[in-house]
Amino acid sequence: MSFNTFGRVFTFTTWGESHGPALGATVDGCPPGVALDEAWIQQFLDRRRPGSSKFTTQRQEPDRVRILSGVFEGKTTGTPIQLMIENTDQRSKDYGEIAQAFRPGHADIAYHLKYGIRDYRGGGRSSARETAARVAAGGVAQAVLRELAPDLKITGYMVQMGELHLDRAHFDAAEIGNNPFFLPDASAVPAWEDYLNAIRKAQDSVGAALEVLIQGCPPGLGAPVYAKLDTDLAAAMMSINAVKGVEIGEGMAAAALTGTANADEIRMGNEGPRFLSNHAGGILGGISTGQDIVVRFAVKPTSSILTPRRTINQCGEEIELITKGRHDPCVGIRAVPIAEAMAACVILDHLMLDRAQTGGQRGRIG
Amino acid sequence: MSFNTFGRVFTFTTWGESHGPALGATVDGCPPGVALDEAWIQQFLDRRRPGSSKFTTQRQEPDRVRILSGVFEGKTTGTPIQLMIENTDQRSKDYGEIAQAFRPGHADIAYHLKYGIRDYRGGGRSSARETAARVAAGGVAQAVLRELAPDLKITGYMVQMGELHLDRAHFDAAEIGNNPFFLPDASAVPAWEDYLNAIRKAQDSVGAALEVLIQGCPPGLGAPVYAKLDTDLAAAMMSINAVKGVEIGEGMAAAALTGTANADEIRMGNEGPRFLSNHAGGILGGISTGQDIVVRFAVKPTSSILTPRRTINQCGEEIELITKGRHDPCVGIRAVPIAEAMAACVILDHLMLDRAQTGGQRGRIG
Amino acid sequence: MSFNTFGRVFTFTTWGESHGPALGATVDGCPPGVALDEAWIQQFLDRRRPGSSKFTTQRQEPDRVRILSGVFEGKTTGTPIQLMIENTDQRSKDYGEIAQAFRPGHADIAYHLKYGIRDYRGGGRSSARETAARVAAGGVAQAVLRELAPDLKITGYMVQMGELHLDRAHFDAAEIGNNPFFLPDASAVPAWEDYLNAIRKAQDSVGAALEVLIQGCPPGLGAPVYAKLDTDLAAAMMSINAVKGVEIGEGMAAAALTGTANADEIRMGNEGPRFLSNHAGGILGGISTGQDIVVRFAVKPTSSILTPRRTINQCGEEIELITKGRHDPCVGIRAVPIAEAMAACVILDHLMLDRAQTGGQRGRIG
Amino acid sequence: MSFNTFGRVFTFTTWGESHGPALGATVDGCPPGVALDEAWIQQFLDRRRPGSSKFTTQRQEPDRVRILSGVFEGKTTGTPIQLMIENTDQRSKDYGEIAQAFRPGHADIAYHLKYGIRDYRGGGRSSARETAARVAAGGVAQAVLRELAPDLKITGYMVQMGELHLDRAHFDAAEIGNNPFFLPDASAVPAWEDYLNAIRKAQDSVGAALEVLIQGCPPGLGAPVYAKLDTDLAAAMMSINAVKGVEIGEGMAAAALTGTANADEIRMGNEGPRFLSNHAGGILGGISTGQDIVVRFAVKPTSSILTPRRTINQCGEEIELITKGRHDPCVGIRAVPIAEAMAACVILDHLMLDRAQTGGQRGRIG
Repeated sequence: MSFNTFGRVFTFTTWGESHGPALGATVDGCPPGVALDEAWIQQFLDRRRPGSSKFTTQRQEPDRVRILSGVFEGKTTGTPIQLMIENTDQRSKDYGEIAQAFRPGHADIAYHLKYGIRDYRGGGRSSARETAARVAAGGVAQAVLRELAPDLKITGYMVQMGELHLDRAHFDAAEIGNNPFFLPDASAVPAWEDYLNAIRKAQDSVGAALEVLIQGCPPGLGAPVYAKLDTDLAAAMMSINAVKGVEIGEGMAAAALTGTANADEIRMGNEGPRFLSNHAGGILGGISTGQDIVVRFAVKPTSSILTPRRTINQCGEEIELITKGRHDPCVGIRAVPIAEAMAACVILDHLMLDRAQTGGQRGRIG
Repeated sequence: MSFNTFGRVFTFTTWGESHGPALGATVDGCPPGVALDEAWIQQFLDRRRPGSSKFTTQRQEPDRVRILSGVFEGKTTGTPIQLMIENTDQRSKDYGEIAQAFRPGHADIAYHLKYGIRDYRGGGRSSARETAARVAAGGVAQAVLRELAPDLKITGYMVQMGELHLDRAHFDAAEIGNNPFFLPDASAVPAWEDYLNAIRKAQDSVGAALEVLIQGCPPGLGAPVYAKLDTDLAAAMMSINAVKGVEIGEGMAAAALTGTANADEIRMGNEGPRFLSNHAGGILGGISTGQDIVVRFAVKPTSSILTPRRTINQCGEEIELITKGRHDPCVGIRAVPIAEAMAACVILDHLMLDRAQTGGQRGRIG
Repeated sequence: MSFNTFGRVFTFTTWGESHGPALGATVDGCPPGVALDEAWIQQFLDRRRPGSSKFTTQRQEPDRVRILSGVFEGKTTGTPIQLMIENTDQRSKDYGEIAQAFRPGHADIAYHLKYGIRDYRGGGRSSARETAARVAAGGVAQAVLRELAPDLKITGYMVQMGELHLDRAHFDAAEIGNNPFFLPDASAVPAWEDYLNAIRKAQDSVGAALEVLIQGCPPGLGAPVYAKLDTDLAAAMMSINAVKGVEIGEGMAAAALTGTANADEIRMGNEGPRFLSNHAGGILGGISTGQDIVVRFAVKPTSSILTPRRTINQCGEEIELITKGRHDPCVGIRAVPIAEAMAACVILDHLMLDRAQTGGQRGRIG
Repeated sequence: MSFNTFGRVFTFTTWGESHGPALGATVDGCPPGVALDEAWIQQFLDRRRPGSSKFTTQRQEPDRVRILSGVFEGKTTGTPIQLMIENTDQRSKDYGEIAQAFRPGHADIAYHLKYGIRDYRGGGRSSARETAARVAAGGVAQAVLRELAPDLKITGYMVQMGELHLDRAHFDAAEIGNNPFFLPDASAVPAWEDYLNAIRKAQDSVGAALEVLIQGCPPGLGAPVYAKLDTDLAAAMMSINAVKGVEIGEGMAAAALTGTANADEIRMGNEGPRFLSNHAGGILGGISTGQDIVVRFAVKPTSSILTPRRTINQCGEEIELITKGRHDPCVGIRAVPIAEAMAACVILDHLMLDRAQTGGQRGRIG
């Protein structure tokens, strides 16, 4: 039970602060013999990298990952994989003012109350930079899943930014990588750009909602009652900085449905059960059914903004605070690759757990 | 890492099926010397008990809890507390038809796919009866919290049932216990009764949304990054049967907010920081701030309904299924005491974890 | 992380005190579809049962196990298995005197110092009765191993009692069940009887050493570095009441060996590597090699004796104490089935862990 | 549950191979506000460092530790502490021959069977170099213990090397640091030097036995039944490379004792209970009593020796093997600081666990 460890059998422990010398992830339990190198992991990090568009922090971090252990001659050995990313563009001087002040909506005050000490530079451990380590760990999971579940595909994208919502009629997964919003609708990109530009010019920030679609997930993953697949996915997403809500399938809208409407009826397909709808989001009783798994979550607006807000400092003095520095106007954007990474880790972990308990055997139908 | 264990230091493991001889919870890590007896726990179970109103299943279960270990002369000893509830009103004959069929929206098919075998009687392990064991475990947590955090108060209530929403202008916590809906608004009860009666007569069911309000929670609880208080609360609620979404504070609505609107500004009060709003729901960076903690979640409609639905059976035959038996028209109602129990366990667990790491010391302000 | 839980994927949590209404084990993570009933488990409990010979406590406990959950129509379902054993022969009046006194060599004082409260009746939680629950859990593990590793055989026996040592030249496994000492040498039984009778008449008790031989263990079990197979076996044995030392293979005698003597040389056999000796006790680098696994441990003499010893009571008064009641003159004897149970649980746990990480694949030689 | 993680609340995860770029430990759960810097940790590493005498491997590793996270302005922040040690003196060419061969008595064959792949350079993950990371983690634990348990003192030393035994009548703790054997008897050092020189010249190696003495340990540490203090200490020591046996107090010798001899009688001292002997080694029922804790363990002889031994290679060919390279003639010597580090981590972990459950309150006597 480590506070900074995620997972049950396939685990990773992240470490590092925003302005320390480095950060990283210690991945444990990885199956042996899986092809893995730094270039593979780097592709995931590059999607999350700050400074990749004008809508993300202008901090210039190459986020180069180094594999320090657990890989030999291009393959995993089954021993711990240490992934290290050095911090190169720390401008600690930016943070002088907030060393003693608590940014409203930020973890500053909570860390101070709990620990009595905090690395205030760049938010320290509570910085979104921690998530780079998760993305690297997710890269390892993706390498394993490529071998153990080759049909699996994990796709994250934005579905909402402030007042703007994805028009699902225009959904085109191929477009996600073609715009700075991970938006699966090319036609909406200009409007999203205008909207976020306006937010930024107003020295403000804005929230977002994201969705992760997991296709080709084997049935039978998830262990009731307290290691349910949806429970672990919810924990995974809620652990991401600034996330305030998580939904599976219908999510909060399930509260409004009737049983007749919500039931996903079943017919027999050529390769097994075929569901006629997917209100459940691919999970029943905490176990995957083979349907698409649909996870959605909301990210609150960046709390570090240039508009002055009332707050206090460590001396208990009431002040007004402007948070200078290089902050994302919509921190939710960069959560897309993070959420994909977390999803990959959860799925792999449960695939391995299921292998432990059932040997990967599936109950037969027909 | 037990699949059926919840918690990190204060843990409970639930066991038992709907129609087995008994079910229960093994509570481990409980502090010693805490006053505890069966009557104390029974009061929590009585609030959840089936058959207590016409809006819950008519199964008549007294749900009498027995303490089999861990309590001596009225006090906890620090050793495992076994809480057992015998099943008395199993009518297994009701379940003949569904032994081989998969109820749409139910865990039946997922359990079959994973395990190849399932106790189909009453849903077996996936039955909501499992939650009686959680409520009993929550009673232990409440006994400890009464001593360790006497100002803490955990209050659950419904905020939505199908199309009906709580009018927060009418919020009156004193009314929660006076109606079968755990509704904090007496004036709305007749409308909720009519609505649910209509649902039931239509041989249908309906979803619900619930809120848990945690007042007086000490600051400093929650351990970033993967044992955040909100992460554990999200996992706790998502582990409850039929839950499809979890929100902290603004929840999914945070996606629509701007940073200026979302920031909970801070002033100095007589006893420490005073927040001017609570969009965060009492948690920042995964750590409690001392504000009210607000958790909300949605429960999907009961999947066992009398209206015929298309499905398949284990032979792969396509059938239509009506689920007879005694089912709640709105399973969300009984989730109120369950959610309170889960919240109590999470808070206590983190209070103990914080005591381990920081000794319960708090950082000073002013 | 439960204090009373053993195991990583296949776990059991024991609960219950010597003189409470019942005790038991909650087994979690068990593979589904395994044949299991109460009679199967009972055979293991019967071997450990008190009162089965004049050399064990005369407390008459039938130790009847009941399966309360997790088994349906004679097969495990993959859900938690609750095993309950009711206490029937508690004579609490025997323990009046020691309610306030601390027996030398006993856990009394340690429990008091830690918890400030203890169920003193029969030693409460620190009683050897707790081990009945382990034996029951071990029975579940044995049922699973029978299917997953049919060649595996776990055999426990005594190798020392006080001054008497097993003569390994006379080793005959078939004799173990034919005498009250689990002694694999029929010819030595009379001498052991005389020795223990003399100890008992002297109102004394005596220590013992036991060995567990695990034959047919698949290679590849054990996960370096902190979940090594020998590490977990050592923890398993050390967790048994009164155990003071654990050895693998050569054990403490390895300190006296040279590298040339200690190296287990290897040749190729028909079915793979063939070791020419087994100083390692079947484990290298924390991983099973396929050789016999040999675990040995020492049990201290029963601390509850009729000979007066100097001690103190809770008031801090210096007293002399005789421990009346029904105590084993050599508590080590009954540790044999307990150690077998613990070994079975460790092996199964690692077999499942290995299945999770490697899929049970083995590296090829030749 | 990470395979490479040790501990329950205060945890560390080690990573790295003998000939990779670096190795280290990720320490999680450390209390905040504790003074810590690299120099403090370095002193522990320097005691374990290879090349520090002619009796240890001549590999020249400075073993410089870097703190990459979790410490801010000289104090721990409560977030994960990453400790990295770069490998600088890898001579991988030395290992050409054994890339395909299995050294008798070494983990080579076990890793191959389990994982099908291994970093054979220098033993890879199974190398004793992994223990440098433990020693670093132990340095963190010692820094915390200095504040939380200032009276605690952990002292390791050798008690046996091959045929030579410590003469306890000559025990002088002050001498431990003055000789290359961590031997608490200056008078015996010449004989030990001669003995080990002869072993080395014979191209052989030899085993050892070590003892760790923990003085000033608070009573009440250890959580029955499966997180007993002695259980965790046994696991800690058994996890060290080449360890084959662990003893607490009397250890294996307890098998020969009678109850009257073994009972540690108790009188009242000025500051609480006073034990008249310490057969128990400071732990009763898995809980510390306040007496000295005594742990002993045996280390087998180094398996890499220059004397040819029969073995096989990956092709299944029977060969004779000489292990060249730079190996310790008695690997047990360097286990002293490792064992101290493990003991420190176990004690701190239990001190924190006890704080979680009991708040550090102690039951009163008198």
